[in-house]
Amino acid sequence: MNYSSKLLESAVNELSRLPGIGRKTALRLALHLVRQDEEAVVAFSGAVLKLRQEIQRCSQCHNISDNEICDICANIKRDHQLVCVVQDIRDVMAIENTGQYNGVYHVLNGIISPIDGIGPEDLTINSLLEKISREPVREVILALPTTVEGDTTNYYLSRKLAPFQIILTAIARGIAIGDDIEFADEITLGRSIINRVPFTIPGSGV
Amino acid sequence: MNYSSKLLESAVNELSRLPGIGRKTALRLALHLVRQDEEAVVAFSGAVLKLRQEIQRCSQCHNISDNEICDICANIKRDHQLVCVVQDIRDVMAIENTGQYNGVYHVLNGIISPIDGIGPEDLTINSLLEKISREPVREVILALPTTVEGDTTNYYLSRKLAPFQIILTAIARGIAIGDDIEFADEITLGRSIINRVPFTIPGSGV
Repeated sequence: MNYSSKLLESAVNELSRLPGIGRKTALRLALHLVRQDEEAVVAFSGAVLKLRQEIQRCSQCHNISDNEICDICANIKRDHQLVCVVQDIRDVMAIENTGQYNGVYHVLNGIISPIDGIGPEDLTINSLLEKISREPVREVILALPTTVEGDTTNYYLSRKLAPFQIILTAIARGIAIGDDIEFADEITLGRSIINRVPFTIPGSGV
Repeated sequence: MNYSSKLLESAVNELSRLPGIGRKTALRLALHLVRQDEEAVVAFSGAVLKLRQEIQRCSQCHNISDNEICDICANIKRDHQLVCVVQDIRDVMAIENTGQYNGVYHVLNGIISPIDGIGPEDLTINSLLEKISREPVREVILALPTTVEGDTTNYYLSRKLAPFQIILTAIARGIAIGDDIEFADEITLGRSIINRVPFTIPGSGV
């Protein structure tokens, strides 16, 4: 590509480093930014830089946070004896959005994936074990993806957690609300039959 | 969405203002940036800010440029009597990439579009007319899109340029190289027959 401006070329280079952004899209974004008010671009550039420079990892759960301890871990109203293990912070957000969970989290920052060279030592598993040996954790919920890597990590964690006096659970897998049973894949449908639960009348509060 | 961090939320807000970037993609981009080296994010943020703060419009052709006059207008080896009128700077890049054009450009910064509230006075048409009355322009090539708006702008320009002693041309429309004739749309195929050109043997240099 033949850029008429080094400034433009350098901005396009930087924007095209973002995941999923090719050079044509990067050019469109750069030209969009050129047309914006200067304050808007100052705010954009500042927010991105500030995010990288000031963001921290919560020292307790490894969730990203503005402070040393994240809002969830710092909240004394939450059940600190209930720990939900997730792959990354997007899963924390997704579970928080349900409004159904009042425990704390532990963010692994990945899952065991030999093909990507990610072993248990690259994850925050030791920190989880330390937390459990230090604090009166009652239950650990595994909320990892249902992939070979997720299952491997679940298995590894279950072995590591076996010596502790805790309840180990995993989130329920089954047919999504609103999904047709005839179109569900066999594995999900099979699991949803094996793991069937007592029927309750919706809204009965049980 | 429930962000665990104000810094993250503010970066996601800014990223999702970019065209074509929704909040989920913005979150993915923000988390990507968090994982990058600090220098990379400083470079990213700096390039974007510098683009907005230092970029200029070429005083002659309105192409974006690092200097008051862009490299194309400043190049004395180019044919300054030949002016190609385009809608925006991406068209300049596209034509430059062909390596087939040695004249200069005039960037209109849009086309006449009553539905979007863009009239002739919002474009750089007066600057084009001034340039033609001031300089010995020989030929103006119209390279605007083949849309109602493009045709309207072509018509408007042809009326405005009529008093001048210049040749007015438009880029050729026809079947793209490599395209099958049977799949061409009727308007393009019809125009390519009306505007047929003398046959030359490829590579004969004619």
